[in-house]
Amino acid sequence: MTTVKDTVHDHIEIDGVAAALLDTPAVQRLRHVKQLGTVQLVYPSANHTRFEHSLGVYHLARRALDGLGIEGRQADRIEAAAMLHDVGHGPFSHNLESLTYRRTGKYHDDVAELLAGGEVGAVLRDHDLDPEEVAGIVAGEGTYAGLVSGELDVDRMDYLVRDAYHTGVPYGTIDTERFVRELTFVEGVGSGGDSPALVLDEGNVQTAESLLLARALMNPVVYTHHVARISKAMLRRAAAELLEATATTAAELRRMDDHDFLAAIRDCPATAELSRRYDERDLYKRAVWAEYDDVPDRVHDADHATELALEREIAAEAGVAREDVILDVPAEPSMRESTARVTVNGEVRRLERQSPLVSALRVVQRNQWRLGVYAPDSATDRVGRAAAGVLDLDPDALVIEVRKAMPTTLDEF
Amino acid sequence: MTTVKDTVHDHIEIDGVAAALLDTPAVQRLRHVKQLGTVQLVYPSANHTRFEHSLGVYHLARRALDGLGIEGRQADRIEAAAMLHDVGHGPFSHNLESLTYRRTGKYHDDVAELLAGGEVGAVLRDHDLDPEEVAGIVAGEGTYAGLVSGELDVDRMDYLVRDAYHTGVPYGTIDTERFVRELTFVEGVGSGGDSPALVLDEGNVQTAESLLLARALMNPVVYTHHVARISKAMLRRAAAELLEATATTAAELRRMDDHDFLAAIRDCPATAELSRRYDERDLYKRAVWAEYDDVPDRVHDADHATELALEREIAAEAGVAREDVILDVPAEPSMRESTARVTVNGEVRRLERQSPLVSALRVVQRNQWRLGVYAPDSATDRVGRAAAGVLDLDPDALVIEVRKAMPTTLDEF
Amino acid sequence: MTTVKDTVHDHIEIDGVAAALLDTPAVQRLRHVKQLGTVQLVYPSANHTRFEHSLGVYHLARRALDGLGIEGRQADRIEAAAMLHDVGHGPFSHNLESLTYRRTGKYHDDVAELLAGGEVGAVLRDHDLDPEEVAGIVAGEGTYAGLVSGELDVDRMDYLVRDAYHTGVPYGTIDTERFVRELTFVEGVGSGGDSPALVLDEGNVQTAESLLLARALMNPVVYTHHVARISKAMLRRAAAELLEATATTAAELRRMDDHDFLAAIRDCPATAELSRRYDERDLYKRAVWAEYDDVPDRVHDADHATELALEREIAAEAGVAREDVILDVPAEPSMRESTARVTVNGEVRRLERQSPLVSALRVVQRNQWRLGVYAPDSATDRVGRAAAGVLDLDPDALVIEVRKAMPTTLDEF
Amino acid sequence: MTTVKDTVHDHIEIDGVAAALLDTPAVQRLRHVKQLGTVQLVYPSANHTRFEHSLGVYHLARRALDGLGIEGRQADRIEAAAMLHDVGHGPFSHNLESLTYRRTGKYHDDVAELLAGGEVGAVLRDHDLDPEEVAGIVAGEGTYAGLVSGELDVDRMDYLVRDAYHTGVPYGTIDTERFVRELTFVEGVGSGGDSPALVLDEGNVQTAESLLLARALMNPVVYTHHVARISKAMLRRAAAELLEATATTAAELRRMDDHDFLAAIRDCPATAELSRRYDERDLYKRAVWAEYDDVPDRVHDADHATELALEREIAAEAGVAREDVILDVPAEPSMRESTARVTVNGEVRRLERQSPLVSALRVVQRNQWRLGVYAPDSATDRVGRAAAGVLDLDPDALVIEVRKAMPTTLDEF
Repeated sequence: MTTVKDTVHDHIEIDGVAAALLDTPAVQRLRHVKQLGTVQLVYPSANHTRFEHSLGVYHLARRALDGLGIEGRQADRIEAAAMLHDVGHGPFSHNLESLTYRRTGKYHDDVAELLAGGEVGAVLRDHDLDPEEVAGIVAGEGTYAGLVSGELDVDRMDYLVRDAYHTGVPYGTIDTERFVRELTFVEGVGSGGDSPALVLDEGNVQTAESLLLARALMNPVVYTHHVARISKAMLRRAAAELLEATATTAAELRRMDDHDFLAAIRDCPATAELSRRYDERDLYKRAVWAEYDDVPDRVHDADHATELALEREIAAEAGVAREDVILDVPAEPSMRESTARVTVNGEVRRLERQSPLVSALRVVQRNQWRLGVYAPDSATDRVGRAAAGVLDLDPDALVIEVRKAMPTTLDEF
Repeated sequence: MTTVKDTVHDHIEIDGVAAALLDTPAVQRLRHVKQLGTVQLVYPSANHTRFEHSLGVYHLARRALDGLGIEGRQADRIEAAAMLHDVGHGPFSHNLESLTYRRTGKYHDDVAELLAGGEVGAVLRDHDLDPEEVAGIVAGEGTYAGLVSGELDVDRMDYLVRDAYHTGVPYGTIDTERFVRELTFVEGVGSGGDSPALVLDEGNVQTAESLLLARALMNPVVYTHHVARISKAMLRRAAAELLEATATTAAELRRMDDHDFLAAIRDCPATAELSRRYDERDLYKRAVWAEYDDVPDRVHDADHATELALEREIAAEAGVAREDVILDVPAEPSMRESTARVTVNGEVRRLERQSPLVSALRVVQRNQWRLGVYAPDSATDRVGRAAAGVLDLDPDALVIEVRKAMPTTLDEF
Repeated sequence: MTTVKDTVHDHIEIDGVAAALLDTPAVQRLRHVKQLGTVQLVYPSANHTRFEHSLGVYHLARRALDGLGIEGRQADRIEAAAMLHDVGHGPFSHNLESLTYRRTGKYHDDVAELLAGGEVGAVLRDHDLDPEEVAGIVAGEGTYAGLVSGELDVDRMDYLVRDAYHTGVPYGTIDTERFVRELTFVEGVGSGGDSPALVLDEGNVQTAESLLLARALMNPVVYTHHVARISKAMLRRAAAELLEATATTAAELRRMDDHDFLAAIRDCPATAELSRRYDERDLYKRAVWAEYDDVPDRVHDADHATELALEREIAAEAGVAREDVILDVPAEPSMRESTARVTVNGEVRRLERQSPLVSALRVVQRNQWRLGVYAPDSATDRVGRAAAGVLDLDPDALVIEVRKAMPTTLDEF
Repeated sequence: MTTVKDTVHDHIEIDGVAAALLDTPAVQRLRHVKQLGTVQLVYPSANHTRFEHSLGVYHLARRALDGLGIEGRQADRIEAAAMLHDVGHGPFSHNLESLTYRRTGKYHDDVAELLAGGEVGAVLRDHDLDPEEVAGIVAGEGTYAGLVSGELDVDRMDYLVRDAYHTGVPYGTIDTERFVRELTFVEGVGSGGDSPALVLDEGNVQTAESLLLARALMNPVVYTHHVARISKAMLRRAAAELLEATATTAAELRRMDDHDFLAAIRDCPATAELSRRYDERDLYKRAVWAEYDDVPDRVHDADHATELALEREIAAEAGVAREDVILDVPAEPSMRESTARVTVNGEVRRLERQSPLVSALRVVQRNQWRLGVYAPDSATDRVGRAAAGVLDLDPDALVIEVRKAMPTTLDEF
């Protein structure tokens, strides 16, 4: 048994298949992938990695399995999935994901391939586990998968608390012990009504709500902070240029860690300027920062190729180089926790049916949604005007929007 | 200057009129009044007092005043009010308040009297402060009073964080530093539109929301936990008996601290049994636990005399002694923070207009509201049935309600 | 099973005999006995009680027992002892102990009596436990008693961390998880060499040292802070007067809780002035504050009667009332942890043999030792001079000593 | 003014010259240099960087300057030095320092050069500061330099607390607020007796001791943990190979950040195997782990060239490749805090004169000192025997030593 001292869960005990997986290159690589990517430019202490997060997810999964009385092979499978759930992440975590996977197929196919091959596959088979089944759990398939990847999963329980601890933000605090103690499996309430599903016990509507509220508080302050978004967009742009300008493939990019990637964009002439800007925190600024309802549907629905075309059009219109314009259209707001199941008065219900907070938080999310167009500081005016034209945005609203987002004294460094 | 080490704010520096007030009997008495009254029966560590809370409120007020650039006599007045804002509390904080003040007049008249007299009055006058003005700030009157007693006051900022720290509950965390830095005074937006008011600066809708959410999370888990409510109701009953059975007056009761009160009800034969139950945690149990909409208006609107009559009627109907029935009808849900002012796009708005969470949390509060009827364990069945009849509650709903509130394994000890 | 949320250990699960003991009056009474007595006058947040400390000690004992593989009746006995180890404490914890037990015999006889009688005795016998054996463990007798009451016991592990948390002092932090994981029982190394004893595993010299260092840091800042000592001496004086002036017996005094005691000294005319001073923090001041080596042996060795005689002599010499002089001679410094056993290189050794810190900390303790003579502020000069004469202290050293202890800005409020 | 949210000090306000320095490449580079280098292999959460540490040191310096009443140019100079004190660090902080500076001259010459040139020099001159003077403060020269680089400096105050927070170890806790409040400057007590020096005010012997104790507790558990030492030695070896095998100069190596360096040793064939071992945590193991007194003087006193010769000799003797042996001889134990000045009884004294802990901790440090010889797992036996011969170590002692250091279950992953 290995014991690790963790900032969030104190001592984490690791044994069995999880201990064997710990020393595989695929898991050790996560030491060099920051959990929050570019958020570190806003919160300088946020340097924690996918590695300790994976240990934390494993720890919570194990505690939940103890509570549920699940043992043996079934437990091993879930513990392995918990430990491995992030090995598919490329450098800078989710930041470059859309890019690397857009070009090479599905994320989960890739995870399945990763788990079947190399030392990880060998360790799993040594412990009588089928890599494909473990990959299935990571993808959320099967009865117990919800524990690792569902609406009430230990993944988000760990990251909320860990991200709060390492940013210093007081908002992500949830009662993880209570969650892992109050989870239960109920037969016949899963999808289709005939499978078992993970449910929070009686008296825990508020426990479930606390998860939503924690995310709602963390989102604007941490996860979607505009400085984090701008720098992420710049790295995504650099990655795209790297793929174009060099022999690097998307598959290779996906296996890089943060060091590899930063070194690669420093070395490549086509990305050197973006790399310098990132390293020295000389970031693009917002030329446009538009609310959800002010953005036309054709922009909301644009696919990647369309986005690139729009960027080029804006650049041409503004009379700046094409690389001086980045268009950043976030995905539609979603709230996976809304379908979490809670027991109320002996009956299993969806959280969204039970809690009025769910729909309110949906509105909040939409209110906080912003489309961004970023450009070098000196070009924001021109690019802003051009983008308003190209994207059919109301220029008045825009100006207001930019002003609305004017630096407060906090969080803006 | 005096420096005090505090669990929540680390070092608190106290000088001027606040330092002089610190050693008055009225302030020192708060050392013996628990901040959370009977919540300590649910969270054993929750033994913090009104005294350290008052220091915390003073500390935050001072930091906010620094940020607002308010100095001199005006600042002294507010700092004194912060330090004194709780001296009017009787034993067990709010728990007995309805009782002691119901019989003797207004709370704020009493505070004004307290501040004008004795050592406190002398200290205030020594520092050229008018006790009546300071009492006015405690009561929320005047331009800057909102800082101590308003929608965004430092009182609730301190208690949320302090109550979380001392219960061990992870929910009350707010960013107090951010609050005191982002408060500003804006002219012409106060009540009536022509007075100045306290407003949160641009970019802080979410800061304001975090205060509401913190309270929403703390409410059911801490402030209105049924064990805390039952024991509070038992102490209130004991206080009423004490006033009836002995020469103790309401005014004397109000000046007791927790020790005096517990000793008094131990000594008085009429309250000895309730006192024993409290001391040994042998509490009444819920005979009824009814939702807001299941309670008829005449019960919602009952005054104190009516409530007493209803209790007697239930006892008679159930065939138990009158003291075996306690009816506990909480006040209507309210949300003072909803009228807090925030700056959005250069315009000062009420939070309730800006944030969809306000109305959702109103629904949540109403969902969490419960009328309770409590009785000794052995009598809950009879009392429950009798109460359903007397109060016109649906007996089916009731049973369900009681079951709904069945002990989970947590928080129930 | 009962689960309690604790500030220090998060969720504490209580079952078996411990859960049954939880609701006995003897254990519930600890809710009203502050863990740190008068330290609350220095650290306003230090209001935690012997009750939550007892839960914490039980929790750590249980974790250690799990680690040691001890189960069944033996485990029950130790868990009961952990839960009950403080029921013998009178009001204000150790503060009045010397007084109450000086007059009535041995502390441990009293504990044995307490455990055998009333509900506690009934619960123990219900669970097939012999109250006398449990009392033995509390007194440190028997093979496994060291876990609850020894050199490396869970009692001090809990109080160091808890006292640090509730004072806000950053010094008491030890790694309790590491302790309970690294404890082991080794045969043939106990007292006399032939019994088993509790030993820290290989690689834990520093773990043991951390316990000593934590205590060394907490001592002057918390446990022996002069304001805590003065107020404790005043309460002790009040208790003595109460026993003399009223029909209250030492046995009754011992069973009071903090509320009873404060109420009793408020009510008794002979103690009303001391009570007022305590309530309003209008404390005596130091007239003498002398170092260990400056105090003659006859004073170090004085028994209680001699101390009282010295007090009277000082008062007469100074021309003040007898009650205006309190002599406070602390016990000889001791360091129980010094005999803790650690494994070094496969061999079990006493910590004092292994660690150079033990003897250094002995010197530190002696350096920090102070004899105090306290008097009302206006009488400190006269009393100081008189005491120097009566106790044969060098008046020059004295003056220096008092100056040395001049208030720093911190901790002195 | 810029405000940054920090995990340790909450909000840090940065203005003046410090704010201007924040955005220079030299300071931003520190984002990519881990504070604790390879300690992250023991404590997975220890990913904090020199960047946030520099902000913390600046923050504490500023608070101390406020307390000391130092303003204007003098304050600017010290604040700049605080912000810049670590810009000279190469990749992996101190880990490679001995190597990079051994070859290129003095660390402080290099810092002076760095501060005079580029954007940093420009910013300093813009604010009327002489880069050479600022570099002097970093080097500990001048009256007030002790604040940033002395026996009681804010550098160690920040790193102890920060390293504790980010490892999860409970030992580094000191009361930084108390330190910055209790520091004072006293004339005529500095070196030579005629210059002013930084002194802790009366009543703070224990405050100073707490700094030593915190370091004494952190040292074996964090700073000199054998896994951290082994991996650090492996990186040092890789750096040496890189300098030999490629055109990279020591000056270039010094300016790399962690990413550059890891990428460089991955790319270079001569270091690829060491890099793989580091990345996958497939580390060398201890072949020898010898106590201070068992090591002959000629080894203690060996210069770098001699060490290399010894390594080659051991490898030859053991019949293994030269790269399979790493000799790691730590510097002589030292304790800079021992000369810290404290005020005792109105007199300024050296801490070592006042506190018996200083000499005890010197013994502890020496007891904890270990010479290491590391080798691949399969070669430890052969290398251990060979090293014992070459270094004149007692083989019996050795075996014991290795056993003594056998993995405990904790901290060893």
